[in-house]
Amino acid sequence: MDTHVSTQTPLAALSAHLAGMPPVAAMQPQVLEWRDGMLCLGAPLAANVNDKGCAFGGSLCSLMTIAGWGIGFLQLAEAGLDADIYVADSRIRYLKPVYEDLRVEARLDIAGEGAADALDLAGALRARGRVNFRVESRAPLADGGVAAVLGARYVAIAR
Amino acid sequence: MDTHVSTQTPLAALSAHLAGMPPVAAMQPQVLEWRDGMLCLGAPLAANVNDKGCAFGGSLCSLMTIAGWGIGFLQLAEAGLDADIYVADSRIRYLKPVYEDLRVEARLDIAGEGAADALDLAGALRARGRVNFRVESRAPLADGGVAAVLGARYVAIAR
Repeated sequence: MDTHVSTQTPLAALSAHLAGMPPVAAMQPQVLEWRDGMLCLGAPLAANVNDKGCAFGGSLCSLMTIAGWGIGFLQLAEAGLDADIYVADSRIRYLKPVYEDLRVEARLDIAGEGAADALDLAGALRARGRVNFRVESRAPLADGGVAAVLGARYVAIAR
Repeated sequence: MDTHVSTQTPLAALSAHLAGMPPVAAMQPQVLEWRDGMLCLGAPLAANVNDKGCAFGGSLCSLMTIAGWGIGFLQLAEAGLDADIYVADSRIRYLKPVYEDLRVEARLDIAGEGAADALDLAGALRARGRVNFRVESRAPLADGGVAAVLGARYVAIAR
């Protein structure tokens, strides 16, 4: 088990983890909320702006992908487990431009394939040493619209 | 028409464009090759590394998405056209970790839906003021393997 899981809160460990990866740190992400299985990350528009003055699609995609990763990390860390978590594949739709600070929300997909594992990631990881999970992420806008949606599949492998 | 299309080569304009977006500049991308309809971009691993010492998935995704964008930009710029180009959706599969500098190659998808437009992007844009196109990108490895593949759909709208 990784020592920083036991000496920091899982949320602090997640923030430290994001800050430790150069391409992620460049986006200046912040953990805004982790509640009822929903992880919300934010990032300033200025660090993630494209040629049109709105959010770069790659930043939205990265932030949503990380949010999904973060859910797996937090759920397992809160159960005292440490795992290597990899994104396997994802699908993203860009719906509207983002002219404000970026915000993404991610939730485990507990309806589709692998739903039983999603309801107990820690139990599945303990039982089999690895677990697949799916996450649905979205980028909500201040006006109530949705800028982008991403569905991604991850695998966690016990260390 | 954007003046820098007429005063720079399209390739120089693409490089300037990438350097002008903060989240893209942070990845330190370079245009390595543009030949026979294939655009190859590279980026140093050090600027794009994750917690496992290999390439951050978001960087791979961003670089492949930009490479597809770049193909549309270059094809239209070489025909003297300037357009706003947006990514509409994409699907990515992460196949192998990348422990070397990142390299991505993108090609127009001229086999699927919209193939006729893909064979003459400039003509379609001139005729209708907008054109959809699809791009297949991949991240080849030095050992001959493939680290990731991405299929993405874009729309170009004449300025």
